[in-house]
Amino acid sequence: MCAARIEPRTLKGFRDYLPETMIVREQLIDTARRVFRSYGYAPIDTPAMEYLDILSGKGGEETDKQLYRFQDHGGRWVGLRFDLTVPLARFAAQHIGQLGTPLKRYHIATVWRGENTQRGRYREFMQCDFDIIGTRNIAADIEIALVIHDLLAALGLSEFTIRLNNRQVLNGFLELLGLADRSAAVLRALDKLAKVGRQQVVAEMTQTAGASPQQAEQILSLGEISGDNHQVLAQAAALLRENRQGLAGIEQLQQMILALSAAGVPQQRVRVDLSIARGLDYYTGTVYETYLDELPGIGSVCSGGRYDNLAELFTDLQLPGVGASLGLDRLLAAMEELGKVQKVSATAPVFIAFFDSQRLPDYLRLAATLRAAGIGAEVYPEPKKLGQQLKYADRRGFRVALIIGEDEFRSNRCLIKDLQQAVQHDVSLDPEAQQVIATVSQILSSGRT
Amino acid sequence: MCAARIEPRTLKGFRDYLPETMIVREQLIDTARRVFRSYGYAPIDTPAMEYLDILSGKGGEETDKQLYRFQDHGGRWVGLRFDLTVPLARFAAQHIGQLGTPLKRYHIATVWRGENTQRGRYREFMQCDFDIIGTRNIAADIEIALVIHDLLAALGLSEFTIRLNNRQVLNGFLELLGLADRSAAVLRALDKLAKVGRQQVVAEMTQTAGASPQQAEQILSLGEISGDNHQVLAQAAALLRENRQGLAGIEQLQQMILALSAAGVPQQRVRVDLSIARGLDYYTGTVYETYLDELPGIGSVCSGGRYDNLAELFTDLQLPGVGASLGLDRLLAAMEELGKVQKVSATAPVFIAFFDSQRLPDYLRLAATLRAAGIGAEVYPEPKKLGQQLKYADRRGFRVALIIGEDEFRSNRCLIKDLQQAVQHDVSLDPEAQQVIATVSQILSSGRT
Repeated sequence: MCAARIEPRTLKGFRDYLPETMIVREQLIDTARRVFRSYGYAPIDTPAMEYLDILSGKGGEETDKQLYRFQDHGGRWVGLRFDLTVPLARFAAQHIGQLGTPLKRYHIATVWRGENTQRGRYREFMQCDFDIIGTRNIAADIEIALVIHDLLAALGLSEFTIRLNNRQVLNGFLELLGLADRSAAVLRALDKLAKVGRQQVVAEMTQTAGASPQQAEQILSLGEISGDNHQVLAQAAALLRENRQGLAGIEQLQQMILALSAAGVPQQRVRVDLSIARGLDYYTGTVYETYLDELPGIGSVCSGGRYDNLAELFTDLQLPGVGASLGLDRLLAAMEELGKVQKVSATAPVFIAFFDSQRLPDYLRLAATLRAAGIGAEVYPEPKKLGQQLKYADRRGFRVALIIGEDEFRSNRCLIKDLQQAVQHDVSLDPEAQQVIATVSQILSSGRT
Repeated sequence: MCAARIEPRTLKGFRDYLPETMIVREQLIDTARRVFRSYGYAPIDTPAMEYLDILSGKGGEETDKQLYRFQDHGGRWVGLRFDLTVPLARFAAQHIGQLGTPLKRYHIATVWRGENTQRGRYREFMQCDFDIIGTRNIAADIEIALVIHDLLAALGLSEFTIRLNNRQVLNGFLELLGLADRSAAVLRALDKLAKVGRQQVVAEMTQTAGASPQQAEQILSLGEISGDNHQVLAQAAALLRENRQGLAGIEQLQQMILALSAAGVPQQRVRVDLSIARGLDYYTGTVYETYLDELPGIGSVCSGGRYDNLAELFTDLQLPGVGASLGLDRLLAAMEELGKVQKVSATAPVFIAFFDSQRLPDYLRLAATLRAAGIGAEVYPEPKKLGQQLKYADRRGFRVALIIGEDEFRSNRCLIKDLQQAVQHDVSLDPEAQQVIATVSQILSSGRT
């Protein structure tokens, strides 16, 4: 015997992805990339690890507490990125001269936060960010909403609502109420309306944010305006009276609603919601949240907003922009809950049973012929009993099994088992495997409908 | 003004990926995944961070020194993965009962090593591993070589050589020489033959590994056998005399050569090389290295081997397997050097110039129509001068620009600029944009040849 075994385990808040889940995750990522690219966004990547001074103090007190930090081999203090926005700010400050604006980038990568796992949160998760940097034009805000829309639609979700607001509407109204200097705290309270209810929001506004009960009521009367988008905007405009900032925000929301509809987004999928503010202080214009209508409780699966100056901590350059972040892992969990995820662990459709070691080159040649025809094929790696091999094929979820024993080789035949329909075909095994390919293709295309 | 700016910079040994490079990297990863999947390998992922006792002491002294380690918020000692083999061993020990064997997995992920950057090494890089676990059958060894072959071919590389050896041949020969107990040190020396030359290898074998000068010469005479694969194997068999272990290794190499050829691998791409051993002690059978014929100096771009017991530190289960690892970043650098990488930063082929803010909904509708037809399209986000917009389109490498100013809108026309050929088309802008789609499709397909 050897030294004591080490217990195989993962850290609290971390997890392994087994094939079934990982296949779905790769599909989600592929779909997101395809949509981003169809709008001209280009990928970037940044290091998982940054100098600590790049990361710390950038995401508020809680994020600072959750930051994984340590000294590296050279005694430098470093941290693991906790989001993709701070690295983007650092990246933009460093490379924007070379890359030019507008910079449209997407970034799909892992981030780490030492969260309290009792809330069911993970400490390692994937973010999927997309931003347009270097323009203040509303066309960019509209595009971000279009990308959100196309993303969810491409993922097979049809029942979702993109909620829009504009910080200028909120800030304008606070200006009107004489609360401009307390806007950050007030908006943080307002943003919790859907989660904690009006009573708690009023309490936080009056006790923490320094608003009077009357002011809190007035803010809520703005946040709670309901009706169709045009009614909401008209009522808000009335409340805002002559406030320039607020009306500019209303005007932008109006433009967005019209353009999104013109570009083909169904009206019921876009809703102006004057209560959403996003917790983050740096948003200055449009803000986005996206809810699955069937699972509103899981929160927003894609959120973001417009910011005036992305990289001010790192550069004198003024870099306005707008963007959003898809919560990939949250979305994956939601899709599983909605039964929108088909779990298989086979990545190739065809299973080739293996009987006689002497015939291995023949099995390999057949598999290569199928692959050359664009059909993935796996040869079982040991000449075991057919029953055992088919059990494996079934467990992995292969679509088709090819069975060629010594008898079949001698008579140049191949048995093709449709594993979903439990139908069997017996075709000729000519050297180019043309009949095998034709029959397999037919089974595969029939399965796709 | 605000607080002192933080200098935007990355840590030594770490780097940003800009769009041009990242697009190529995503292509490489996609190609690798496609090939893995065509053989039935399924993806998995594991956490970047593991309990320190899972990682430390698993990769030898140097790796231990390079390990990023620290205490997390709960005071646990943790480390960042330095390869994907140790996490696979832990993963297999934990999940093999549920997943069953054979387990064919690929894992494409980032690893971290605090390497000396003076050697031009990076501290963060991507690995791309594929393994078959749970079988000793030579069919699995053959398949790994086939995957290596298809990988490089799919990446557009045609001049490469997969070098094969088998540890049993080497161990058998050392047995014959009475050096079985010193095999690890002797093989580490032999493995350096191509890099440091025979004189230094002899020196290391005699001074460090404890071989006599005569023994060192004999080992080199085995390692230096050259000729075609069958000649090499025949000569080695003669040297091995009756040694069972060695002859078993020869027999396996023979089977591999025959099967690879039968499966369509060109003979010149596979070479038996009895000097390669791989530094790692855990290989017990086949070993693989892959060299680009035009750039042998960069070293092996895809290496691996067979191991008897992957997870013995974590479980009583015996888990034999075979696999290899593609050095993605090394390969990317090589392909750049060979001019096999076409650098563009556009991810959509069509650029739509934007002139009149009032017309934004029309531009967006046109872009949506193109996307619905499967053609990626980017609308410039500001109504700037055409020259400026075309400069941007050129810098990003778009293939086609669509130009629709107020005149064109009024006459329902669209100018289509082929940016590669400097040809311009003037077509009708009907509501479904059918002529635009037809003309753009034609330009795009002509560009692909």
